[in-house]
Parts: sequence; C-alpha cells; structure tokens
Amino acid sequence: MFQPVKGTRDYLPDEMRRRNWVLDRIRRVFECYGFEPLGTPALESWEMLKIKSGEDIIDQIYYFKDKSERELGLRFEWTASLCRVVASHRELPMPLKRYAIGPVWRYEHPSEKRLREFWQADADIVGVGEAIADAEVLAVAVDGLKQIGLKDFKIRVNDRRILEALLNIADMPLGRSLEIFRAVDKIQKIGVEGVREELKRLGSSEASINRLLELIKRRGRPDEVLVDLERLVAGSPVGLIGLNFLKEIYKYSKLFGIDEYMQIDLSLARGLDYYTGPVFEIYAGGFEDYGSIAGGGRYDDLIKLFGGDQTPATGVSLGIERILLLMEEMGMLRNLEFGSRVYVAPSSPRMRPKAIEVAQLLRKEGFETDMDLMNRSLTKQLEHADRKGFSWVVIVGEREMAEGRVTLRCMRTGEQRSVELVELPGHLRPHSSSSLNFNSAMV
Amino acid sequence: MFQPVKGTRDYLPDEMRRRNWVLDRIRRVFECYGFEPLGTPALESWEMLKIKSGEDIIDQIYYFKDKSERELGLRFEWTASLCRVVASHRELPMPLKRYAIGPVWRYEHPSEKRLREFWQADADIVGVGEAIADAEVLAVAVDGLKQIGLKDFKIRVNDRRILEALLNIADMPLGRSLEIFRAVDKIQKIGVEGVREELKRLGSSEASINRLLELIKRRGRPDEVLVDLERLVAGSPVGLIGLNFLKEIYKYSKLFGIDEYMQIDLSLARGLDYYTGPVFEIYAGGFEDYGSIAGGGRYDDLIKLFGGDQTPATGVSLGIERILLLMEEMGMLRNLEFGSRVYVAPSSPRMRPKAIEVAQLLRKEGFETDMDLMNRSLTKQLEHADRKGFSWVVIVGEREMAEGRVTLRCMRTGEQRSVELVELPGHLRPHSSSSLNFNSAMV
Repeated sequence: MFQPVKGTRDYLPDEMRRRNWVLDRIRRVFECYGFEPLGTPALESWEMLKIKSGEDIIDQIYYFKDKSERELGLRFEWTASLCRVVASHRELPMPLKRYAIGPVWRYEHPSEKRLREFWQADADIVGVGEAIADAEVLAVAVDGLKQIGLKDFKIRVNDRRILEALLNIADMPLGRSLEIFRAVDKIQKIGVEGVREELKRLGSSEASINRLLELIKRRGRPDEVLVDLERLVAGSPVGLIGLNFLKEIYKYSKLFGIDEYMQIDLSLARGLDYYTGPVFEIYAGGFEDYGSIAGGGRYDDLIKLFGGDQTPATGVSLGIERILLLMEEMGMLRNLEFGSRVYVAPSSPRMRPKAIEVAQLLRKEGFETDMDLMNRSLTKQLEHADRKGFSWVVIVGEREMAEGRVTLRCMRTGEQRSVELVELPGHLRPHSSSSLNFNSAMV
Repeated sequence: MFQPVKGTRDYLPDEMRRRNWVLDRIRRVFECYGFEPLGTPALESWEMLKIKSGEDIIDQIYYFKDKSERELGLRFEWTASLCRVVASHRELPMPLKRYAIGPVWRYEHPSEKRLREFWQADADIVGVGEAIADAEVLAVAVDGLKQIGLKDFKIRVNDRRILEALLNIADMPLGRSLEIFRAVDKIQKIGVEGVREELKRLGSSEASINRLLELIKRRGRPDEVLVDLERLVAGSPVGLIGLNFLKEIYKYSKLFGIDEYMQIDLSLARGLDYYTGPVFEIYAGGFEDYGSIAGGGRYDDLIKLFGGDQTPATGVSLGIERILLLMEEMGMLRNLEFGSRVYVAPSSPRMRPKAIEVAQLLRKEGFETDMDLMNRSLTKQLEHADRKGFSWVVIVGEREMAEGRVTLRCMRTGEQRSVELVELPGHLRPHSSSSLNFNSAMV
C-alpha cells in the first residue's frame, strides 16, 4: 500500500471541507480589503529562488534539474515570486495589493506542526513605504483570523533597525547582524542558553551577549515599551528611524481597530534575511506557547534585488496548517456551519429516473445534492445519508410522485412531511445558507 | 530580470480574477452534484506515480530525489493520488464522489495551449460500476462548463471494449492493444497517415490497418451509430458488453439532460493506459477543431493495482487553461460580472483617519473595499480607481464628514451624490452581487 510522501499528508473529505471553509473565508477577507489575486507557478528557476533566501532556507528548497538540465526548484514561500513579477511588470499600477493562497515546499524535519508541503496565505502591499501599509496587512490578517472564529490575539512587533541599534549598544560584531538576527530568532525554539551558544560561535564576547540578551528581554504594551525605547536608542539615528516607524504602525493600528492586540517584542527577529524594517508575528491570545500562526514584515530592498526599481513592500503570511491544527486543539472545527446538503432517495430502483429528475431540479436551484447511485434499499440510503451528514433526505416514492409530491425528511429531527415537488426548493431554502456568501458575514 | 520557467506563466490580477471566477463556478457545480473535496499532495513517491502511468506519460513526469535520496515526482494528473487514498482508506463510505482542483505538472513541449504547470479540475465517482455514474460525471462536467457561460457541446464517447472488438475484426496483433489505442488516439494530432505509419511499426498488416481505419471512421448520433454497432460487434462478447454500456450511458444522459450533446466516436481511444470501459471527451460545440476541453473514462481495475479492493471508478477532468483560452478566443472573458468594488478616497491627507474608518465599515459589511495609501490628490485617486476598475468611489471630505455624510460616485456613469454614512452600505448593496453566491445561479 502506498503512503503519502514523508512530510506530506492527505485530507479526507470531512477535513478538506473544513480546510476549504477556512481558506474561503480568509480569501474573502483579503478581497474585502482590496487585495487582488496574483498567480505564479510552483516551479521557479533555481537562480531566482536562491536570491537572498538565506542560508538556513536555501538548504530546505526542493531543487532538481528537468530533462533539459534546467535548474529548478519548488517555491518555498510566495514573496520571491511576487518580487519577480513586480520587477518585470513595471506597467502594474501602484500600489499593488496582492494575495496568494497555496502550497509551498520546504525540506524540513517533519512533525505534526511542520509539513514539507504546506499552505501559506499571503497578503502584501507593494509600493507604499509608509506604516499605514504595515498596519493594513496586520489588520487584514487579524480580520481573516477573526472571520474563521479566533477571538483574541497577540501581535508582536519589532523593527530590524531597532535591533541594529541594540547590537550596537551591546557592542556586537558589526557586519554579522543577519547571522545574529537568525540566532536571536531561535530564542523560542532553542531557549536563551541556546542563543547564547550560537552568539558565542559568531564571535561575540560574553559581556556583549549578556548585554544583548538583557536588552531584548523587553516585551510589552507599545505605550510602555516605546517610551523606554526612546531613551535606549536616543543615540542611534537608525534606531530612531525604527522607533518612529513602530510608533506610526501603532498609531494606524488604532485606526484599523487592532491596537489592543499590539505588543512590542525586542527579541523578535524573524528568520528571513530580506526584512528591512518592521517585522511581526501574530499569536492566538492565550495560546502564545503554540507558536505564531502568521508573520511577516517589510522588505523595501528585495524588488530591486530582483532587477526592479527600488520599491517599498510589506506583507503578512498566514500558516494554514498551523491555524487549522490550533483550531482543532481549541475545539473550533467540530461545529462549523456548512450549507445544508440534500440527499435524494428513490423508494425503489424503479423510481431512479424520477430521483434523477428531482436531483437535477435541486442542483439547478443551487442546492448541494447527492442521490443514490447503487440501487440501495431505502433503509440503507437513510443510513448512508446520516453517516455522510446530509441535512435533508428527499424520498421519491411511486404513489406520491404520481401526485407531484415527495417526502422531505429532516435528518436532525427525524421529522418527515409530504411536500409538493414544485415547492421543495422553498422548503429547503430558509434553512440553507450558501457557505460561500459572505455579504454581512464580517461581524 | 527573471522570467517564469519555460512552460509556466504568471497570471496578473485582472486575468487571475477571471481565472478564479471560472474555478469558483466549476467548484460550486461539483459541490451541487454532491462531489466532496479530497486533498492530496503535489509531491508523490516515484514508485506510486510510475504505476500504470503509461510509457508516453512516464517520460513527462517531473522526477527528482530529495535530500535523503527519496525518489519523488510531481503529480501529472489527479487519478493516481485518488486511487492511493481509496486503496489505503477502506473505511471511506462508498460511493465516494470526490473533486480536486489544482495544478499538475508534465514535461511537455510547451505551447500556448500546453503548459508544463497546468490546472485540472477533476470529478470522480468511486464504487459505482453502473453507467449512471459515467453519465453523472459527464453531466457535472457539462453543467460546470455551462455555468461559466459555454452553451453548446459535443460529448464524444467510445468504449475500450468496442475498440478491442474492432481490433479483432480487423485482425490486428493481439496483446498490443494498448499500443494500438495510443496510436489511434493521435489521429487528430498526426492525422490518418500518421496513425497508419505508427500501426505499421507495431507490426500490423496493410489490410488490417485499412480495415481498422475504415471501422473507426464512424462517428455520429448515438441513435444511428449504436444500431450499426449492434451488427458490427454481434460476434464479440466483449464488444457487446461495451455496446450495452454505451447504450446505458446514453439512456442516463437523457435523464441528466445532456443527451443532445452525445456522439459516438469510434476513433476515440484516450492516451491513458488505465481505462477499462467507456472513454469520453467534451468539446465546445462549433469549436471541435480547438480540441477537447475535458475528458475522462472508466478505470475499474486501477484501485486494485494500488493495493486496494477491486473497486469500479469513473471520472472526468476539465482542462482549466484550455477552457480559459477558448473562452478568451470566444470573447467571453471580457464581460464577466464581478461583484462591485469600492474605493474610499480622502479629499486630503488630513482625512485619512476618517477614510480608514469608512473603509473598515464597508469591509465589515462585506464589500470589497480599497482606499488611498499614498496620500494622492483626489484627481489622482479617481484616475487610479478608474484604471483599476472600481465600481464606486466614496469621497471622504472634511465638511461633509462633519455632518456624517460622504460623496458616493458611480464610476460607470460619473454621477455623484451626497449620502449619509450610515446609509452608505444600503446604497451600495442593490448593485453589489457577491461573486461567490451561487444560490439560484445555475440557470
């Protein structure tokens, strides 16, 4: 028997339906915020993928040669492809607000929380250098998470320029800041002592390391931490730029209605090399130990690296598998409301043609409708419909049908009644809610 | 500047929106027919992919080894993964009606019509050996195509068992039928003379080839061709089974309302090796030369080959790029109706906070809403909104806002009027139609 490849998995229908429910809602929120879809291939050239992807990640890219020895790889995130498109399509009106939802691939040590093929839902704003864009990508992420039922959040924010200033204050070796950021970024994974070891290996002195670890400990509400920072980075021009940018993000976060979730976290560095300013991670409130469910930051230099004009950009990425696993742990996936589904059951094989007719009628009216294809007995059909979670069964009987009527059975209550066929859609409609209709759903 | 890898392409927002419109509608029709989503990874083991994928296709699979020398490939179609899941999940209730929509990869000679990364939308019924299932997958495909605006179709149908009988009648070499089917399948691509050459190479005599090419010429309405076939395959038990199965499909096609499109085409063989009975291809009526836009067939032995129980199965696959390209050629993509999108324009940078407030209000009400992020002048904002195809602009002016009012501008007519902010959603709603609400859309 064949299994899915290590680090990948299958989603059986019940699970996949929940997954699609989550993906549809996130996408709908992206669209409500004016983000537009952009399609880029999963296969990208190796030459492009390796640009600034960072040492840690370059080892994780699925790399191979095609039959004409072309060096290829599978995308490991969405941002590089976005930058490639922006760089080569200068005709695109700015700002470009684009979303992308789909699989990415990384050769990692697989675990329940970490797959080798996993989905990211990204929203990015290209062309806006101001903090309003960073606040908006945070707002769209939080509203997406709210729309799938999460209620409380922690948005941890830092700025690479503040981190630079702190390295300076701690007298850390210049020119190795990317490596230091990567070491600091592992603090939740490997602990303070682990980070200390890594920093030692990078050639920092014990005193510098102690000082840095002390500095980055600070985490809390923006109103408090930003005031402290004012004193701390007073002597650092780059640090002040970072500080002012965080202040602006915080200001806009109030206008977008997400300020209550904001936290400054000076230990936050993010693994990717390309960030130039603010970086952020979103956690479910009360579930911070679970790890972040979304993250992102600003990458103002990346599009130029891909051959484009210098173009500011910022974005956020939602980790779909992590979100689903968390929702599962929180018991949120059990009671999702789907649109009602109808099962058409002929009372005997002879009624099959009439049952097809009824099913086609309901399908044309937009109802999710299945019917017996196996000439099963009515009892077996009802068992099947129950097991598969249908809301309604329409029983098509011979005598009833001759009078233009069918029996409608509510599977939840077991109640049955005879209804006129022409009125059947009307009977089903009040209870049916299209799972894809989000008008007035964002409450 | 980096380009997409040869045989792949990008979809800019306007094109991607149309693409999603098509994908959403097809998916909705799949769901209306009771098909359920199943998720399987793009990465599959090479061992699994090469099972019965057929010589021609095995060369087209993207094959590589991961960092632990595991032999992998990218899926080249959806069916193998479906069979893997069915074989290893015997607990799944039958019948399983599953759909899958997403990219597949084949290393082919790329052209506008043939990409190396392309999307297939599949609907399959597992567990039903009767022709009602074949008719239903044809019906769901045709209704999916109708739902995206196509109006007329040709469904060409044949049966491998009839082809077997014809090979017998023509005295073709036994045991090479798969290779002969593959040769015959190329008739549209390489013409009758090309097929003749291939058949010669397979060791058939001139007389046999002439006879076979004469036999498979027959194509027409089922009522006519099925009668002819009755005489032709009268002496072949396997041919008669095939013939009776086609009769059944035709009978059910009437109940599903797709009989007017049915055609029997004795030259239809389909490239994939695994078909065991009926095979079919769907063409847009009047555009048969364009090539098929969907195809499929029955594969009753495949799940057993994957280690499962002997389980009948049939399915159809829609070629998304081909469908989109055809719609483009037919001029159908220009006038798609999307839900209306709203642009919020502050009259001056000072009104930005109020503009954010208005945008957030509309987003919560479910409207696709964008706003100025670049402090552009009102004129420039209107230009941008026009260029990006927004239906409405809400102008947030200082004096008006003080009275709780905004200006609503219809971008189609240029009309403007002052409305109360609390009534703004009501003004937008009658014109807005959620592009994802398909209730009562299947007409």
